[in-house]
Amino acid sequence: MTEQEELNKAIVLRFNKEVLENGSIDAINEIISPDFINHTAPPGTPVGPQGIIDFTINMMHKALTGISVQIHDQVIENDKVVTRKTIYGTQVGSFMGVAPSGEQVAINIIDIITLKNGQYTEHWSIRDIQDMIDKSAKANNR
Amino acid sequence: MTEQEELNKAIVLRFNKEVLENGSIDAINEIISPDFINHTAPPGTPVGPQGIIDFTINMMHKALTGISVQIHDQVIENDKVVTRKTIYGTQVGSFMGVAPSGEQVAINIIDIITLKNGQYTEHWSIRDIQDMIDKSAKANNR
Repeated sequence: MTEQEELNKAIVLRFNKEVLENGSIDAINEIISPDFINHTAPPGTPVGPQGIIDFTINMMHKALTGISVQIHDQVIENDKVVTRKTIYGTQVGSFMGVAPSGEQVAINIIDIITLKNGQYTEHWSIRDIQDMIDKSAKANNR
Repeated sequence: MTEQEELNKAIVLRFNKEVLENGSIDAINEIISPDFINHTAPPGTPVGPQGIIDFTINMMHKALTGISVQIHDQVIENDKVVTRKTIYGTQVGSFMGVAPSGEQVAINIIDIITLKNGQYTEHWSIRDIQDMIDKSAKANNR
């Protein structure tokens, strides 16, 4: 792995710890480029840090408490970092259209980040929220 | 990219073309190691080529016709190949618990393959089947 690839890997690990787990807006503003494009976000999502603040702080951290991220694997080539991970949290509010169960849920993700000059510039991901859906359905008797 | 990485990339592209698009059992038997483990498959799935034959030939190619795979991106590091892709096909039979719509559906996937000696040895993936679910619900008036 090149020095640049090592650095990019560390930035992605920092994002998962400081932003996804700890909800740091300062870290978002440092890590996310003003030109950042989230290819997985719904149409109308702002480019740059604001789109991540909207999703991560204003939605995810309100819906899930005690968030932890388990990193299973990373695959790194040049300016791209792939991460296979699970986000755990107790669902106390609606999230991605799913009513809360009050239980700990696991969201499985593989994401691809493109970085430039130490900042996120692009993001693609696929998420598996079946565990959250199943627990919501059971808790809400559907 | 090393010579080994180039070769692994070509094997993954061959699998997507010959197996996912064309349904070749010969290609499955050549590409899939006898020890192959599919970490995304349900419990009880056989190891080795048979698990892929069961899912791809006996399930997917019966449920979807006119399958095409669009490769959007690949990220390659040592023995691992990550592929971001969309599988298109017309859904004529039940697939992954979803009743057929008769329409063309798009399944978005990011998968990670580990290769050894030119064969698949491990696989992880996350799939987004929301388009298939939405079209099924509409076609079946649910």
